[in-house]
Amino acid sequence: MRYLVGVDIGGTNIVVGTVAEDGSAVHGVRSAPTLPEQGPEAVLGRIARLVQESIGETERAAGVARDRVVGVGIGSPGPLDRERGVVLLTPNLGWRDLPLRSLVSEAVGLPASLDNDANCAVYGEWWVGAARGAKYVVGLTIGTGIGGGIVLDGEIYHGTSDVAGEIGHTTIDSTGRLCKCGNYGCLEAYASGPAIAARAAEGIVAGVETRLRDLVGGDLSKVTAQMVYEAAHTGDEYALEVVRDTAKFLGAGVGNLVNIFNPDVVVVVGGVTMAGDQLFVPLRGEVKRRAFKPAVDRCRIVPGELPGTAGVVGAVATFKNQVWGEV
Amino acid sequence: MRYLVGVDIGGTNIVVGTVAEDGSAVHGVRSAPTLPEQGPEAVLGRIARLVQESIGETERAAGVARDRVVGVGIGSPGPLDRERGVVLLTPNLGWRDLPLRSLVSEAVGLPASLDNDANCAVYGEWWVGAARGAKYVVGLTIGTGIGGGIVLDGEIYHGTSDVAGEIGHTTIDSTGRLCKCGNYGCLEAYASGPAIAARAAEGIVAGVETRLRDLVGGDLSKVTAQMVYEAAHTGDEYALEVVRDTAKFLGAGVGNLVNIFNPDVVVVVGGVTMAGDQLFVPLRGEVKRRAFKPAVDRCRIVPGELPGTAGVVGAVATFKNQVWGEV
Repeated sequence: MRYLVGVDIGGTNIVVGTVAEDGSAVHGVRSAPTLPEQGPEAVLGRIARLVQESIGETERAAGVARDRVVGVGIGSPGPLDRERGVVLLTPNLGWRDLPLRSLVSEAVGLPASLDNDANCAVYGEWWVGAARGAKYVVGLTIGTGIGGGIVLDGEIYHGTSDVAGEIGHTTIDSTGRLCKCGNYGCLEAYASGPAIAARAAEGIVAGVETRLRDLVGGDLSKVTAQMVYEAAHTGDEYALEVVRDTAKFLGAGVGNLVNIFNPDVVVVVGGVTMAGDQLFVPLRGEVKRRAFKPAVDRCRIVPGELPGTAGVVGAVATFKNQVWGEV
Repeated sequence: MRYLVGVDIGGTNIVVGTVAEDGSAVHGVRSAPTLPEQGPEAVLGRIARLVQESIGETERAAGVARDRVVGVGIGSPGPLDRERGVVLLTPNLGWRDLPLRSLVSEAVGLPASLDNDANCAVYGEWWVGAARGAKYVVGLTIGTGIGGGIVLDGEIYHGTSDVAGEIGHTTIDSTGRLCKCGNYGCLEAYASGPAIAARAAEGIVAGVETRLRDLVGGDLSKVTAQMVYEAAHTGDEYALEVVRDTAKFLGAGVGNLVNIFNPDVVVVVGGVTMAGDQLFVPLRGEVKRRAFKPAVDRCRIVPGELPGTAGVVGAVATFKNQVWGEV
C-alpha cells in the first residue's frame, strides 16, 4: 500500500493528513493557522512542516515507512490554473500568480498536484464519503463562503477555464442582499456561516427573544453560525427559525442544482452540517417544493461524512486522478 | 451521402426536415399544427405524413433517392425514458407512457431515436450552429416555456434520470412570481414568451404610454412577446423597457449558468432572439455584472443560428449519436 499526503489550504487554517492510496485510512492529521498576512513564503514553510509532521506521525503511529509516501495533493482557494499548477488570485490569502504546486513539490521532495479546495472536498465525499461511487454529484462547501464542486462520471467538472462550480455565487434573489462579490442575492449572501450569523444578529437587533443575546453579552458582532446551531439544538425558538430560514435559502439554491443536473447526490460539506436534521429536514422539504419530481425522487440530499478531512482526502483523490490517471 | 429526417414536436407545431448526414443541408422542411387534443394517434399520423412529404420533397428538389434516407431523429417534450424510447408524461400534449420511438419507427419504416426537444435544439446549435464545436455549451430555448440543454465534450448531459437541464425552472427570485410549475420565481415566470407578454400587459394596465395598447385595440390578452420586440424595434420606449427588463431577468439566470458551468458558449434559441441586440447587449451587460470575471471573459453569449430548424437538425444529431455512436 502506498500513501499520499493531502493538503487543504483555507483562509483560516491549513489541514494536512496522510491517506492510504485506497482511501481506507487517514493518519497524522495536523493543522495550523494559515496566517496569510505573513506572506506566501511563511505559509509555504508551514505547509512543508505540516507535511513532514504528518508523514512522521504516520510512520510512528501506523508503521508506514517514509518511502511509501509518494506524493502530495493540494487543495487551494482559486481561481487557479491546474495545467501549470499556479494559483492565479486568492483575495483571502493575497496570492497572485503563485506557482504553488512546484513550490510545495520542491519543499517536500515529492510530486504534487493542485486543484480547487471546494472541488477537492466534494471529490473526497465522492471517493470515500457520503456520495461514494455516485455517477452525478453536486456538492456545496459551506463555511466562511460557499464553494461548490461538480463530479460527473468520476471526474471533477472544471469548465473551460477551471472556474466552474461557483455555486455560492448563483443568484436566488436577483434584487436581494448584497454579496461580497458585488452581485445581489447570491446564495452565499444568505447561507454562508457569516451570513447566517448576520441574519441572526438582525433579528436580535429588532428585539426578538433568544438566548443568543445573552451568549454574546450583547455584542452582536460575536454571534456565529455555530452558536445558532447550538442554540437551536437546545430548543431556542429564534435560533430554530434562523436555521429554518437557512434551509429555505439553501433549498432555492439546491433546487436549482437538482433541476439543472438531475444528480444522484447533493452533498453539503462544512460547519453548517452541525445543524443536523434541524437543517436537512426542512432543506429537503424546500427542494421538494421547488424542483421537479422526477429529479427530486432520484436525488439524495445529505451531509458530508468526512467532517474536517473531506478536503484532505479529496486532494489525495485529485492527485491520483491527475498524476496516475485513475482514482 | 446519407440523409436523416429530424422531427421536432412542439405543443403548437410539428416541424420536420431532411438533413444531410454531415449537417451541411436541410431539405423539405414541413410543418403542421400539432393539435394534441385529437389524441396521440392523430398526432402520429401527422408526423408520419410530414416525414413522407419531407422525404418526397427532398427527392424532387435535391435529387436524393429515398433509399439514401436511413433514419428518423425525434425531439419531444418530456420527461422521457431515452433507453426505452418512451415519453413518460407531457402535460402540454396529454401523453403518458407513449412508446413514441417505436410508433414513429413502425409508421415510417425507418430506425428512430428519441430525445428531449430542448436538448435537440441545443445539440443542433452545437453541431452546425452558433455553438459549433465548442467544448462546454449551455443553451436555453425560449418560447411558450423555457427549456434547456447542456452539451459537454460533444455529448448531451442527461443526468441520472434524463431530466437534466430544466433551466427554465431555476429560481432567480425565491419569493417572486408564481410559475406554472408551482414554484415561485422561476426564470420561466419572467422571461418566457407569455411571461414577457404578461409583464408588458401589466404596465399597460398601469397606464403607461405605448403603441402596444393600440396594436391590440385595448384587449391586453392579445399582447404577445413578438409584438413587444417589434414595437421595441420601432423605438417604442415602453416596449424597450420590457425588453431590457427581460435581459435583466435572463441575465440572472444566465449568470448562474456561467458561474456553475464556466462554459465556452451560452446559446439562446427561440422567438426571443428576434429582439436582437436590444436584448443581447443588456443581457451580456447583466451577466458581466453578476458572474465571475474569469468565467465571463471566456464565455460567448449568442443567439442561435438555426432559427426554426435547430430542433430538427439537433434531432438528427442525436440520432447519429444514439444509433451510430458519433455525430
